[in-house]
Amino acid sequence: MRIVAALGGNALLERGEPMTAENQRANVRRAAAALAGLVKAGHALVITHGNGPQVGLLALQAAASPHPPFPLDVLDAESAGMIGYVIQQELGNLVDDKLFATLLTQVRVDPDDPAFSHPAKPIGPVYDEATARRLAAGRGWSVAPDGDRWRRVVPSPRPLEILEAEVLAFLVGHGVIVICAGGGGIPVVRLEDGSIAGVEAVIDKDLASSLLARQLDADMLLMLTDVDAVYLDWGTPKARALRHVRAGEISAADFPAGSMGPKVEAAVLFAQATGKPAAIGRLGDAAEIVAGRRGTCIEADGPPSGFDPDQGSGLCRLAS
Amino acid sequence: MRIVAALGGNALLERGEPMTAENQRANVRRAAAALAGLVKAGHALVITHGNGPQVGLLALQAAASPHPPFPLDVLDAESAGMIGYVIQQELGNLVDDKLFATLLTQVRVDPDDPAFSHPAKPIGPVYDEATARRLAAGRGWSVAPDGDRWRRVVPSPRPLEILEAEVLAFLVGHGVIVICAGGGGIPVVRLEDGSIAGVEAVIDKDLASSLLARQLDADMLLMLTDVDAVYLDWGTPKARALRHVRAGEISAADFPAGSMGPKVEAAVLFAQATGKPAAIGRLGDAAEIVAGRRGTCIEADGPPSGFDPDQGSGLCRLAS
Repeated sequence: MRIVAALGGNALLERGEPMTAENQRANVRRAAAALAGLVKAGHALVITHGNGPQVGLLALQAAASPHPPFPLDVLDAESAGMIGYVIQQELGNLVDDKLFATLLTQVRVDPDDPAFSHPAKPIGPVYDEATARRLAAGRGWSVAPDGDRWRRVVPSPRPLEILEAEVLAFLVGHGVIVICAGGGGIPVVRLEDGSIAGVEAVIDKDLASSLLARQLDADMLLMLTDVDAVYLDWGTPKARALRHVRAGEISAADFPAGSMGPKVEAAVLFAQATGKPAAIGRLGDAAEIVAGRRGTCIEADGPPSGFDPDQGSGLCRLAS
Repeated sequence: MRIVAALGGNALLERGEPMTAENQRANVRRAAAALAGLVKAGHALVITHGNGPQVGLLALQAAASPHPPFPLDVLDAESAGMIGYVIQQELGNLVDDKLFATLLTQVRVDPDDPAFSHPAKPIGPVYDEATARRLAAGRGWSVAPDGDRWRRVVPSPRPLEILEAEVLAFLVGHGVIVICAGGGGIPVVRLEDGSIAGVEAVIDKDLASSLLARQLDADMLLMLTDVDAVYLDWGTPKARALRHVRAGEISAADFPAGSMGPKVEAAVLFAQATGKPAAIGRLGDAAEIVAGRRGTCIEADGPPSGFDPDQGSGLCRLAS
């Protein structure tokens, strides 16, 4: 089965953990162990990953430098290099009979996307309000509250097209394990003369992974994070985990915009467009999620897709 | 013809120019124009590039950050992302009928390479001696004189194996223009248990490109820089450009260690191992160099290789 597996930023760096090379590598090593299980089970993997802490750090370092900071498209490419390399190396150390390729990935967005006038995606560290406002004034950042602290926010336009999809499909079709679309991919627009140019934005990694899974004709979209399932009424006494759900029975709007909302939306988009399942769950449970025994599985509307969990593909499915 | 084209750091950022995103993009755009001519002439290109100014800046930014600096393998991966992306985008804007892939590339070195105990490759900005010595003490850097200024120096072990060569060959063989081995590739070693680990080093980009050209069975190794040819007695009144030379008639030891020496060595290694030509010259002359009309062409010892410049491949060759 061809699986697009998206590693959340929180699966790559635990919440609150300092952004160091050692912490990043230790977390990637854990992720690699989970992914190696999927490779050994015979699945063809396309791995995407977040870059929130990394791109935030790079932007911060660049802002502290005497040179003008690099734009976000270039910073995304940097972070895709630094994270993709470590994922490839650690997974390669666990899976020695496969070829790997870590590719830079340009993702086209609409230059008129309303996100450009409403920056809302937080990146980098948290600040108190006074520091955030001072940085905003000094560096031309937009900042916004994030819980009881403040963070820099940047535009997060919707991904429309993975420009490297043909090369990626070619590699996957020949058994190469591919790591791509780091941090949601490098945001670019097509100009009126047809040329491609980078833009100052960060694309949601789950929405980009959903698009990639559709463009690559994947059998499953698997979003791996640090919670075990999608919860209704999260944070209340009524909280309950969703195990299997139809895409039409769940709405991204019912979940937090910054975290579970985009995952649910990415899952619904993939399931509805392809009729194939999307799943969300804890990184360490990856193999169990694919087998339909853990996590939340989101399937397209309509009759059961015909998978039999005891007989068939092992992909997560609705009980029929 | 399959050509490995190595873009020198000085072809990507003019000497003395500040390391900004704008300068980098303007220089890459010039490089892309030169490379597009080769693609349009029908050559299959594998593009490598230097990263001296970029990795120096990244290391400097990281050193200014409150977190411990990232190791050089990770910084190389970052710089490969930031530069490779811009090369792919700018060249893609000039060549719209080809597929592109920018890949992270691990290059194996010997953990016992003597370079690890004799750091000699300069990276990053120049300092006066007092500043250099202060930074060396504070950050654990090695520093060394570079002309009348000082710079940080790091180990530069010899490249032994491009780990992604099989995937790269597969892509090139299917008509994909590949950008790889940025900054000489990510330096790694094979540990006793067989696993791969990054090391604190920077691999010479020309030596890595020469190895890559041999592993990919390239027809030519083309090293593009900001001088028009290899000169004997450079900087003296006797200075004269070499046009065509046998590998056995030229020695890297006769050229400056930090600049032309590695290029000559890379050319000789490629020519001797493959019997095919290597060439060195100015970026803007790329097409003319391949045609044998500009730059310095270095061929293996022995009888002329049989190319006829008026009839044949157009690759640079010795006059027979």
